[in-house]
Amino acid sequence: MRIIVVGASGTIGRAVVQELGNKHEIIRACRNGLDVKVDMTSVESIKNMYEQVGKVDAVISTAGSAHYAPLTELTPELNEIGINYKLKGQMNLVLLGMDYVNDYGSFTLTTGILMDDPIPQGASAAMVNGGVKAFVKAAAIEMPRGIRINSVSPNLVQESLEKFGNMFPGFEAVPASRVALAYRKSVEGAQTGQNYEVY
Amino acid sequence: MRIIVVGASGTIGRAVVQELGNKHEIIRACRNGLDVKVDMTSVESIKNMYEQVGKVDAVISTAGSAHYAPLTELTPELNEIGINYKLKGQMNLVLLGMDYVNDYGSFTLTTGILMDDPIPQGASAAMVNGGVKAFVKAAAIEMPRGIRINSVSPNLVQESLEKFGNMFPGFEAVPASRVALAYRKSVEGAQTGQNYEVY
Repeated sequence: MRIIVVGASGTIGRAVVQELGNKHEIIRACRNGLDVKVDMTSVESIKNMYEQVGKVDAVISTAGSAHYAPLTELTPELNEIGINYKLKGQMNLVLLGMDYVNDYGSFTLTTGILMDDPIPQGASAAMVNGGVKAFVKAAAIEMPRGIRINSVSPNLVQESLEKFGNMFPGFEAVPASRVALAYRKSVEGAQTGQNYEVY
Repeated sequence: MRIIVVGASGTIGRAVVQELGNKHEIIRACRNGLDVKVDMTSVESIKNMYEQVGKVDAVISTAGSAHYAPLTELTPELNEIGINYKLKGQMNLVLLGMDYVNDYGSFTLTTGILMDDPIPQGASAAMVNGGVKAFVKAAAIEMPRGIRINSVSPNLVQESLEKFGNMFPGFEAVPASRVALAYRKSVEGAQTGQNYEVY
């Protein structure tokens, strides 16, 4: 298959490219460009990416951050970072990419454990995850031409333990390679409307 | 208790005012103003509302719409209607209102059945509901001064059957008065981080 991985330079993105790279043609997209450049917060940039890449069998997004702040310091403006990037950005990859995905192709987006297992400073991230999960579940029943859509909800990954571990006390971090398997399940499997929890 | 009900002119808002009005002092807020005017899409307007109303024991939001469209016709712009109104609007009621809620007070927001039980044309509404639900669950663990936060997830209400019933085939609509009970549970009870499903 021909697969775009958006967020290919990130920890999970790299693991997904490694998991799928032997068997599929991978086009790596990220903000700074690998094979193609994309700014998820810009509708124009997403359109440009699809125009450059053309038809694909699968779109994977491992991209999208959110702002972490204590709830009492979370302003409407800081809350918009995650809305613009991880929530709208990922949904726009679907809304603007549908015509570029071949019949029976798939979209796979990324949510995250914080919607199920919240931590201090994580309300904005949790919200974004919950929004993406619900979008995927609802969009799945309306996808045209047999196109499927799922999301993957990673736990904290072991590769990020040093950087973020102290924010996630008691979380049992998982290797990014294990998270990557869920993207393979979504792309090569036949399910739709699922949120694969890798906890 | 002194309670603001935002969205007080809507079907559910009116039922909530009726359910709580005998026992509590209710300040009814909505776009066109009843006791106080508020435009949920505007940070300034929300701030003005709180300045006018002053301290309260509870903030209830039954406000916020989203755009219904077939997925293949849902543009990034149409998708933003729900994001700006029901998602950001309700979260901003919390982020901007925390200092106006008395110790051990509460926020109660509104989600909806479509995140759990999707219908065609409902992806944007489902997404907004899922975002609000996850925000509530995560925000609950960080609320200061014993303030609680919950959401209520209504089914289609019987009062809206004529207008929306054909979009919800096979849904067992519930009376708005039954939905209103869940807001009472949130306000007068002691739970936090819950999403009360009235299905």
